[in-house]
Amino acid sequence: MSEPVLTLIERDFALEDLQGWQLTQDGKAIHKRFAFKNFVESLAFVNKLGAVAEEHNHHPDLTLGWGYAGVLFTTHDSGGLTALDIQLAKAAEKL
Amino acid sequence: MSEPVLTLIERDFALEDLQGWQLTQDGKAIHKRFAFKNFVESLAFVNKLGAVAEEHNHHPDLTLGWGYAGVLFTTHDSGGLTALDIQLAKAAEKL
Repeated sequence: MSEPVLTLIERDFALEDLQGWQLTQDGKAIHKRFAFKNFVESLAFVNKLGAVAEEHNHHPDLTLGWGYAGVLFTTHDSGGLTALDIQLAKAAEKL
Repeated sequence: MSEPVLTLIERDFALEDLQGWQLTQDGKAIHKRFAFKNFVESLAFVNKLGAVAEEHNHHPDLTLGWGYAGVLFTTHDSGGLTALDIQLAKAAEKL
């Protein structure tokens, strides 16, 4: 059974706690671009986030290059944002 | 001093050897999307490519998610494609 999609109120409430995360894909996903000092630090972040994603079996779509990493979360099975996306975005903030 | 940009003939000749790589960004970059079995394998590829990139101090822009990794090479300092981009694309093929 797939996770329930957040209501608009749940979604907006959750986003208030997520500094720098923005809605994208018609409100079905959240995205943030993180800045780093170089490529190695960007890659280190992606690896740490990858470990968390693997642990929860919920994987972001990422962009990665010299000094940046972009993270997008959505729940494909549910067709939108779920509590799991919010949970992993919060985990990304703590890395 | 920045690397010289490839001539059109050099570029087209090099691309003949690079299966699946396509010109993008108005011919100033090359891109390929690689397919993998899951997130872990995509990330493993990105880490291996990252090590090669770091070694040459020439870094791709990447996309990464469950079952795929996209690789884009360009030489920003030169404003286009150089021999270094071709070299690293070939290295990516061997990973």
